[in-house]
Amino acid sequence: MYRPEIKVLDCSIRDGGLMNKWQFSDDLVKASYQALCAAGVDYIELGYKASKKMFNVEEFGKWRFCADEDVKNVLGDLKDSSKLACMVDIGRVEDEDILPVNDSIFDMIRIACYVKDVSKGIALAQKIQEKGYETTLNLMAVSTNLEREIDEALIEVSRSEIPCVYVVDSYGNMYSEDINFLVKKYQHFCPGKTIGIHTHNNRQLAFANTIQAVIDNANMLDASIYGIGRGPGNCPIELLLTFLKNPKYSVRPVLQVIQDYYLPLSRQLEWGYIVPYMIQGVLNEHPRVAIAYRDSPDKDDFVKFYDKLTTPEVMGK
Amino acid sequence: MYRPEIKVLDCSIRDGGLMNKWQFSDDLVKASYQALCAAGVDYIELGYKASKKMFNVEEFGKWRFCADEDVKNVLGDLKDSSKLACMVDIGRVEDEDILPVNDSIFDMIRIACYVKDVSKGIALAQKIQEKGYETTLNLMAVSTNLEREIDEALIEVSRSEIPCVYVVDSYGNMYSEDINFLVKKYQHFCPGKTIGIHTHNNRQLAFANTIQAVIDNANMLDASIYGIGRGPGNCPIELLLTFLKNPKYSVRPVLQVIQDYYLPLSRQLEWGYIVPYMIQGVLNEHPRVAIAYRDSPDKDDFVKFYDKLTTPEVMGK
Repeated sequence: MYRPEIKVLDCSIRDGGLMNKWQFSDDLVKASYQALCAAGVDYIELGYKASKKMFNVEEFGKWRFCADEDVKNVLGDLKDSSKLACMVDIGRVEDEDILPVNDSIFDMIRIACYVKDVSKGIALAQKIQEKGYETTLNLMAVSTNLEREIDEALIEVSRSEIPCVYVVDSYGNMYSEDINFLVKKYQHFCPGKTIGIHTHNNRQLAFANTIQAVIDNANMLDASIYGIGRGPGNCPIELLLTFLKNPKYSVRPVLQVIQDYYLPLSRQLEWGYIVPYMIQGVLNEHPRVAIAYRDSPDKDDFVKFYDKLTTPEVMGK
Repeated sequence: MYRPEIKVLDCSIRDGGLMNKWQFSDDLVKASYQALCAAGVDYIELGYKASKKMFNVEEFGKWRFCADEDVKNVLGDLKDSSKLACMVDIGRVEDEDILPVNDSIFDMIRIACYVKDVSKGIALAQKIQEKGYETTLNLMAVSTNLEREIDEALIEVSRSEIPCVYVVDSYGNMYSEDINFLVKKYQHFCPGKTIGIHTHNNRQLAFANTIQAVIDNANMLDASIYGIGRGPGNCPIELLLTFLKNPKYSVRPVLQVIQDYYLPLSRQLEWGYIVPYMIQGVLNEHPRVAIAYRDSPDKDDFVKFYDKLTTPEVMGK
């Protein structure tokens, strides 16, 4: 698929950090950054921007906070063609954490929120846009919302100045038919805005669902190196780059950083197609129960996990 | 998707055996068989039927040959609801290897051939049908054929009595749009015949492509336990069973056999999403070069592999 409007955003460090409290080595982040720039990836998301007052800096790595001075210390000398992004959650960042864009190493700040909090998300985005950043609104977990709620949220988004709104399959539950349905809906309610896509790989559908979104004219595509991300992870960027025909993209630098950093990392940190994540994807649930299970002695007892999650009296359904 | 005509065929032992010369323990095959019967899977393919004159019985396990007496010795006492299948390649089986169906433990014999050999494939299928078996014709590697060749082959198939013809993505190269195109084509040329789908998972599209085929009215679906199969493997049957709504299917017995047998096996035998297989899928090539590479000291040097396969003077392109 060649369409000049298509942009790729790598979320390896931000989404992958959910599995290791953002304790990545500077070397890994530098190598990722250089590889992604060489690969022609448009945006590189380095983590969450969050207040150091709200999270313990001993417990969480620097990519949990994305303080500008910390990021400049690691990447300052390398600044290359790709734009830098970070994500904020509503209520976890303070005004002082977000510098005016001209004083910041970041170009884009993405706002993540649930549908119920869309007004708060839009208000935060508005403030961030006023500081000069590009913004996107990432509406999480919409597979758990009623259509009426989604429609109302989209009407609010359509009235805002946020240029890009994301279809997010937080729980890795969607089929390509769901992606098609939602991308069309987002376009219908938000004409003129860019539609983004962020998928999870619980059911090995992250890449296929991203392709479906591209077919439906989504133009901001999230992906991650070797699929790193929470639980089952995201759409592998090496797959996405082989699909896109835009001549600016190149997969080779990504293969290099996989073999140098992410393959070794995958032997210490777990993500990918793992049965408990698949089960929670099927059930349209947050992966937190599976993540805890994978850290227990029963981690490979898939039937016990399945029974636990599908027995109504246990789960309070 | 609920459609009563849909049948699922498990090819774990047959396709997975391509990675270990069919040296599966009897226990694993028995447990797989029992789990798949309990899961409601319609057909279980146990291997290739081949002449013991043509392959060394010391080197290859019994599922390379699928001699009726050997299979009866392992499964005879368990015979349950699912039908048993095996596959034959043209030129690798003799008439005497195929008993009349009433003397055989098998219900179905599938004939695999390339498009260039379709006449031979049809002739063999005809002979096998005359012995009373259900048959399918699996046209391999069609992603490397010109459309004209495929059309000619399908015209021949349409004139035969073979009730089922498969779209086979041997090299894991196809997108859902290719699946849609081919399933529609097969239906156009072979009205009234069942269309089957057999995918490979080089690009994490095996499940998504199987779903696409279902949407397009394919009714014979190949899949395998935990995705086992040559190289990247096949569509994981545990994913497929969660997608299909037919009440006869149940995923739980498959989860049990994964944790008891296939997860441990996956620590000794390699299959799944592995970068060299991904690269060969993108390049629309047989995985044999990647399989050999994964057995070499350079196995994790993905860039070297990529360069080797994409340098025209090396590959003689």
